[in-house]
Amino acid sequence: MSKIANINLIPIGIVDNTFKKTMPRPKNGTPDDDYYDELKEYFKKIESLESDIRIFPEYEAALEGIDEFSHILVLFWPHLISEEKRSTLCVHPMGRGDIPKKGIFATCSPIRPNPVLLSPVRLIERHKNILKVKGLDALDKSLVVDIKPYLGHYHSIEGTRCADWMEKIIMR
Amino acid sequence: MSKIANINLIPIGIVDNTFKKTMPRPKNGTPDDDYYDELKEYFKKIESLESDIRIFPEYEAALEGIDEFSHILVLFWPHLISEEKRSTLCVHPMGRGDIPKKGIFATCSPIRPNPVLLSPVRLIERHKNILKVKGLDALDKSLVVDIKPYLGHYHSIEGTRCADWMEKIIMR
Repeated sequence: MSKIANINLIPIGIVDNTFKKTMPRPKNGTPDDDYYDELKEYFKKIESLESDIRIFPEYEAALEGIDEFSHILVLFWPHLISEEKRSTLCVHPMGRGDIPKKGIFATCSPIRPNPVLLSPVRLIERHKNILKVKGLDALDKSLVVDIKPYLGHYHSIEGTRCADWMEKIIMR
Repeated sequence: MSKIANINLIPIGIVDNTFKKTMPRPKNGTPDDDYYDELKEYFKKIESLESDIRIFPEYEAALEGIDEFSHILVLFWPHLISEEKRSTLCVHPMGRGDIPKKGIFATCSPIRPNPVLLSPVRLIERHKNILKVKGLDALDKSLVVDIKPYLGHYHSIEGTRCADWMEKIIMR
């Protein structure tokens, strides 16, 4: 393993949007009506949120052809996660004390050993090095590390099974 | 940008499978019948391929609950891609000279500025720190950097549009 002990990522762009607040958490770990209202509001906001992904000029050529896809996958690095938090292995999902602790790899927590987050979004338009997208759940100034085309036949899987506790916390 | 000039990933596991050959490429960039046969065979092989993802023991606790999902997203690092290749910005998709060059971010090329590859797979079973999965398109000994649950309501998007050239090269 020694020769690949370090895998280095280079930011290729940055997110510009009005999304400054992280996901609400229930007070004292116990969800109440206010929390559910706030969470619903939060998801609704993201769904309609438009963001600019500003790809750094030296990578602009790598966008050629991207606007022939209606959706893209954005891989980004949550810049506010501190290095120490990366050692967390288990959490109460979304800070919910009423749900038993789960492993980080079973959750969507941005706190993970390698916090490379993934968001499938609608590509509204490309203008030179700027991608305007809808539905990106990345906070303002998150660092973008990769853009991939969303391929329906490959990325979209029907009839998958989701854990009951996950269904419960996302309230669907 | 100085304080985040380096984003370091730490491998959390490794892929064990019988998949040793990279995707076939057309000879001299021109696809012929032999190439199409070989490509079809290649895709068929991956679809039914079973792999073990050996999560390193120190991360085993982070898998708690993962087997409550039928599908997972595997983020991995293609260990055979050389550092120099990461500066490539445009390619003929899949080595096809008959398709105009496209930007790396519009392609599925494993050669990209940050080669963090993504594969949605069926989770067959978990046994301690080993995840047995089906359909993983990672070569044997690829380094795993993250595991995420596949969430149908979020990752599966219907009615997306794919570039004509992409449809053509994947022959669907």
